[in-house]
Amino acid sequence: MLENVKQFAEKNRALLEEYLRLESVSAQGRQMIETAEMVARIIEDKGGQAEILHLADTEAPPIVYGEFLAGPGGNAEKTLLFYNHYDVQPEDPIDEWETDPFVPTERDGKVYCRGVSDNKANFIARINAIEYWSEQAGGLPCNVKFLLEGEEEIGSPHINAYLAQYTDKFAADACIWESGGKDAAERMELSCGVKGIAYFDLAVRTAATDIHSSNAAVIDNAAWRLTQALASMRNADNEILIDGFYDLMIEPTDLEYNVLAKMPFDRQALRDTYGVKGPFITDNLPYSEKEALIFYPTLTISGLLSGYGGSGAKTVLPAQAKAKLDVRLVPGYSPEAVEQLLCQHLDKHGFKDVELTRLAGVMPFRTDLSSSFIEVVTRAAQKTYGEESVVVMPNSAGTGPMYSFGQYLNVPIVGSGTEYYNSAPHAPNEHIRLTDYYQGIEHMIHLLADFGQ
Amino acid sequence: MLENVKQFAEKNRALLEEYLRLESVSAQGRQMIETAEMVARIIEDKGGQAEILHLADTEAPPIVYGEFLAGPGGNAEKTLLFYNHYDVQPEDPIDEWETDPFVPTERDGKVYCRGVSDNKANFIARINAIEYWSEQAGGLPCNVKFLLEGEEEIGSPHINAYLAQYTDKFAADACIWESGGKDAAERMELSCGVKGIAYFDLAVRTAATDIHSSNAAVIDNAAWRLTQALASMRNADNEILIDGFYDLMIEPTDLEYNVLAKMPFDRQALRDTYGVKGPFITDNLPYSEKEALIFYPTLTISGLLSGYGGSGAKTVLPAQAKAKLDVRLVPGYSPEAVEQLLCQHLDKHGFKDVELTRLAGVMPFRTDLSSSFIEVVTRAAQKTYGEESVVVMPNSAGTGPMYSFGQYLNVPIVGSGTEYYNSAPHAPNEHIRLTDYYQGIEHMIHLLADFGQ
Repeated sequence: MLENVKQFAEKNRALLEEYLRLESVSAQGRQMIETAEMVARIIEDKGGQAEILHLADTEAPPIVYGEFLAGPGGNAEKTLLFYNHYDVQPEDPIDEWETDPFVPTERDGKVYCRGVSDNKANFIARINAIEYWSEQAGGLPCNVKFLLEGEEEIGSPHINAYLAQYTDKFAADACIWESGGKDAAERMELSCGVKGIAYFDLAVRTAATDIHSSNAAVIDNAAWRLTQALASMRNADNEILIDGFYDLMIEPTDLEYNVLAKMPFDRQALRDTYGVKGPFITDNLPYSEKEALIFYPTLTISGLLSGYGGSGAKTVLPAQAKAKLDVRLVPGYSPEAVEQLLCQHLDKHGFKDVELTRLAGVMPFRTDLSSSFIEVVTRAAQKTYGEESVVVMPNSAGTGPMYSFGQYLNVPIVGSGTEYYNSAPHAPNEHIRLTDYYQGIEHMIHLLADFGQ
Repeated sequence: MLENVKQFAEKNRALLEEYLRLESVSAQGRQMIETAEMVARIIEDKGGQAEILHLADTEAPPIVYGEFLAGPGGNAEKTLLFYNHYDVQPEDPIDEWETDPFVPTERDGKVYCRGVSDNKANFIARINAIEYWSEQAGGLPCNVKFLLEGEEEIGSPHINAYLAQYTDKFAADACIWESGGKDAAERMELSCGVKGIAYFDLAVRTAATDIHSSNAAVIDNAAWRLTQALASMRNADNEILIDGFYDLMIEPTDLEYNVLAKMPFDRQALRDTYGVKGPFITDNLPYSEKEALIFYPTLTISGLLSGYGGSGAKTVLPAQAKAKLDVRLVPGYSPEAVEQLLCQHLDKHGFKDVELTRLAGVMPFRTDLSSSFIEVVTRAAQKTYGEESVVVMPNSAGTGPMYSFGQYLNVPIVGSGTEYYNSAPHAPNEHIRLTDYYQGIEHMIHLLADFGQ
């Protein structure tokens, strides 16, 4: 079957590349409208109906609605929703890319481009699966809907408002999430949830202007203030020191722990994938690496900027310093609760001068692991990847707006996609392997059939 | 007399502006040779002899030697050396300048330009004083030599080598340092020493590539490592926590403490000058602000750079982080000793992965405060600024390569110049007041006479 799928996929290869060329960087608002319009055009070209939906009173990028109806032999009572996003991460550091970040380039059976793994190829893969049923089998086994948003990479700030306004339009029985892929042992990971996120700017200003550093004996500087504020949040064992932070966590259930127990975890493969140099931060913590990845929150400095960053020496007391703080959330946490704890922490430790601004907030979500939809997706995956090569995860370590879908649409949600362990999403030289792409299409072809039964 | 001096100064105003326009940023190697050549041309145009001196086997910017001989009525037995530098600091943050950093601009009796206060106007002021004696009084009261270097703003890495090679050429009886000026109460400060400096790059790499921040539950990142390494060096009271750091200090003598006692210190003026927002870092330390500024070392973060610094959110684990560390030294410290202590500190605290690279090192220096040259400079200053408006300082809080001059030329050294408390050296909108500039010339005119007696 895979050979047949491959021919399909290659027929739509130019379409994939056209989609990849659009620089839909949501953090910088580049080419968002053009990209949404292309998505709608693709859906209509393949026989569906599409609408570009806007929110009143915002500048938010639109979401794209798509609908394909079950064919004559299909089950018109059942609707599967595909969630994707058409936005991508910024491409910097640009000088670490081997080829232009927005020119799709094939090398050694891989396609390199910003956004190819996260998550433009997954949308085109699903389109391929739909076209397969329409062309090869006379019609779709079930109804299919699409929701593609343009703000996933900046924390989906408007997805709640969109789902609240268009709840009925997106009504479905189950949802396949935007992403998924293979781990370092080539097992297909199916994730039933996501971590949430709270993302902050931290900013300090200590003086009206940068000052000659000879004054450092008496005048403090913003770089020191920010360094000390950040350092107060984590100890040498890498425990988070924010009062009450760990208390928010809802203890995972026995079923969730059982699913976790079946999940493999290959420490060395993870280290090799990214060329990790130091020890893992869990080495001195009272829970395992696997527990940390799936069940625990994180606190990450994603950026630091203060004073002079050029070559050579500049003897200056920086008046300003900025940091980006990325906090991943598990069930029990909310962005608002984390913001409050961070504010309290800064106040308590004498850092009232450090301004905290929340840029994004997404709630965590975990599908009820007893849902039958998880079994349907797993069986379809086993037909594609082999029985032993499919892993179910309670949730992934990454983030997406699943909570909103659960809240407004009340659907079970499982992720599947065409990525693999070395796809480098959010990083230079992001790519997918073409064989994974073909298999991802096949998985969706099986799933549409099984789901329609 | 000041009116006469002003006419002189205005006659040479175009020369000052031509000199200021050259972008001699040593940290970035811009227009260094052109600037050295202009300096030599100015000296020769004003009747002196100049040489551009190079070091064998280096790419170091040249130093400029200048010599003017005593006139017929002058004292040919005595030689005064002027030390200046023709390099300037980088101009960033460029968007905080009200006018182009390298276009000298007069507003409200002030001249704005990068390098005008530190220290291009001082060189032109001294040239004015020399020309005054040549034209108005038939000749100089003593011999004058100049040494202008091009690496002061990056820590004078080659001044030792230059002075070792050209010791005899620069032989003199005393030296006037490159800089000096008025404090916030409009008192002229004469400094008899400088702090030294050790300037470092700190760099950490934690992985081969930037990583999606969902991995933060197990994989550490460079921004956190650097933050924790830096924070380990200072406690909440702002004491430096590097083992043995304070032990290096040589306790100041009674005479030095007596001179310090006569120095005024206006806390509020210093705060107002720079718009300082928080408390001074000495608030919880067991010595006064004045002691800190003159007698104590510093540890300053001058720059931080890691991960994403743009607008919006990027969810990344930065693989690299960099900091600039600026340490000011007092007698007893050497750059080498500080480097060793920093290395030991990083090792001891588990930060062997933080790479330390010393970019610059300058020894501290303090003239013997019983030297008669200090009295000569003070008397000349009192004639210009008034008896009550002259302050002698054991050393300034800033840095320069005085130690090298003391070591090779064995001269007493005192600083004097045309800056004032709000000149913003090393910062945007650097400037001098024209009245200070005229007075600075007058001080040098009196000094040449008194020194020649």
